[in-house]
Amino acid sequence: MQNPLIHFITNYVSVNDVANITLAAGGRPIMADAIEEMEEITSVCNCLVLNIGTLNKVKVASMLKAAEVANRNNIPIILDPIGVMASKLRKDAALEILRNNKIAIIKGNMAEIKALIDIPVVSTGIDSIETQSDCNDDIALQCAKTFQTVCAITGKTDIIADKNTVEHIEGGTPMLTNITGTGCMTAALIAVALASTGNAFESAINGIKLMKESGRIAADCLQPTEGLGSFKVKLFDTISKRKVD
Amino acid sequence: MQNPLIHFITNYVSVNDVANITLAAGGRPIMADAIEEMEEITSVCNCLVLNIGTLNKVKVASMLKAAEVANRNNIPIILDPIGVMASKLRKDAALEILRNNKIAIIKGNMAEIKALIDIPVVSTGIDSIETQSDCNDDIALQCAKTFQTVCAITGKTDIIADKNTVEHIEGGTPMLTNITGTGCMTAALIAVALASTGNAFESAINGIKLMKESGRIAADCLQPTEGLGSFKVKLFDTISKRKVD
Amino acid sequence: MQNPLIHFITNYVSVNDVANITLAAGGRPIMADAIEEMEEITSVCNCLVLNIGTLNKVKVASMLKAAEVANRNNIPIILDPIGVMASKLRKDAALEILRNNKIAIIKGNMAEIKALIDIPVVSTGIDSIETQSDCNDDIALQCAKTFQTVCAITGKTDIIADKNTVEHIEGGTPMLTNITGTGCMTAALIAVALASTGNAFESAINGIKLMKESGRIAADCLQPTEGLGSFKVKLFDTISKRKVD
Repeated sequence: MQNPLIHFITNYVSVNDVANITLAAGGRPIMADAIEEMEEITSVCNCLVLNIGTLNKVKVASMLKAAEVANRNNIPIILDPIGVMASKLRKDAALEILRNNKIAIIKGNMAEIKALIDIPVVSTGIDSIETQSDCNDDIALQCAKTFQTVCAITGKTDIIADKNTVEHIEGGTPMLTNITGTGCMTAALIAVALASTGNAFESAINGIKLMKESGRIAADCLQPTEGLGSFKVKLFDTISKRKVD
Repeated sequence: MQNPLIHFITNYVSVNDVANITLAAGGRPIMADAIEEMEEITSVCNCLVLNIGTLNKVKVASMLKAAEVANRNNIPIILDPIGVMASKLRKDAALEILRNNKIAIIKGNMAEIKALIDIPVVSTGIDSIETQSDCNDDIALQCAKTFQTVCAITGKTDIIADKNTVEHIEGGTPMLTNITGTGCMTAALIAVALASTGNAFESAINGIKLMKESGRIAADCLQPTEGLGSFKVKLFDTISKRKVD
Repeated sequence: MQNPLIHFITNYVSVNDVANITLAAGGRPIMADAIEEMEEITSVCNCLVLNIGTLNKVKVASMLKAAEVANRNNIPIILDPIGVMASKLRKDAALEILRNNKIAIIKGNMAEIKALIDIPVVSTGIDSIETQSDCNDDIALQCAKTFQTVCAITGKTDIIADKNTVEHIEGGTPMLTNITGTGCMTAALIAVALASTGNAFESAINGIKLMKESGRIAADCLQPTEGLGSFKVKLFDTISKRKVD
């Protein structure tokens, strides 16, 4: 599908970057979170992305409504459980979304995915400081099985799992963790791929790869005097030149 | 008037760009949407811009209050009916604003303007995929007459109409549709012009021309490796160098 | 402390820039404003920043809750009273925060600080057009004494005062007033310093100096064709290269 329409209910921190990365990748974003318009808006979209950053109870109700509309209309849903380990509000919301709806892809960092499957985490804030270990694949598999979904754990090594298969992605650049919203933007890249192909596992891989490779290209062509401001500009340049598969 | 103060009740997607473009064009932006402060804030501003993206019922009440304050104080109002064809919430809000208040300028894409005057639209999302035809001038004129306003329809050819006159603007670049919020930013440029001159028809033309010409200049000086990130930076560069008439 | 976690309850205009400047300066930002998660989130942070731009009553309640949590846990609070002179809603909120809590630093422009201590102001909007005069030091000292805090008044000359001492900072560039949110970003730089050192007076000085010096460097290396878009990119570049003391 060309220029799929993606409905985002998302945080107000990275929302502008998420809209622009969606456009850069060939999608059309629509941001809307009033419960009164969820039926009309979600039902004409090709993918729904639920991001629980800057959450509140009003938005939770809208997310539940939008997810119900999406499931009823066979529109795939991506859940981005930002900071789900940081509060009961976020965890309750994520679990209620997961309990009541079929979610195509859950994408989060290690702390977020652990929190969803009740493994203790040591992280504070919204970033993951969980160490990587041999059992990381098991965590992704357990999440995928528990919620009947594709689970994508982002980090130095990304781990993408459905109930049977695990894939790893290396590469990228640490600079991607130094600008806000790259996780949210990755979900948008996955959404454009998912809306186009319908294949959740492949879309998670392709969206993450696009972000990692574009980040590396952007970092590689920085001049010595350039820093995070130029990195972000070049990241958008690179993605708009490459687009999602 | 130098550095007019513009009050925006607007969506949280493009709000940062709207504030920065207002500053770049020589205006001073103030974003506020709590109904308790509308009387104090709107009444000291030189223009009010109502943008119905990421709308909710709380913001509708604030918009109605701010519009009433603006009309009572002879402060011109610009309505930007983002995605009004996408939901009943948005359409009801736009029509209630229009029914109860004198609006100086309505600026929207073809789908949005059609929706306001009850002509069926085929677009989904917030973008217009309406085809252009000979009767487009009539749509702008009908909108202008129906709401006793200046109607500016943005698109490949922009159409600006008051009840008697129609003007067309060509030029620009397709890249302007590939970054989010250029429509919202165009309304800000129109607002700075309107607050300065008081002439709605001329301000709509000048604001749109400034965006189109700046977009073309920004696109023309892109290097081969540069994409949408650099385009947005150069758009702001260009507008801050030119300012609004 | 390395990479301190900063909790922001802030406006939706500059929130993305605030998050990115926090990361550029070596901090970790978390934006959250639902009252249900204030206990869990504020209590694990190293600094709380309350910014009253785009305020509403729901956010005021969350700010009061977060401030109470911060005080109880000896987490320093920075108050950024954006546009406090513009409405009763904002002034009542700022004064209620100040009455009920120990605030480490108040940072505002001259109009904002005057409004807090009931000196008439002539500014409209959120910017200060107050003229500078000999009595400016007294205003900073009076604010510091009244609220038992460090008071930082930003402007052409910045004035930082605790109850006994006043320091001035010169330099910077007028371009910093031509992009939105540089005041909010300055509070973030102060927050990273404060969370790291615990010294409010020194942190206010260091955060403001970092913004002013970075702004000047960014302005100095602009090419003739470059304007506000490039200035903002270079500002982020410079801060990410220097970091806060």
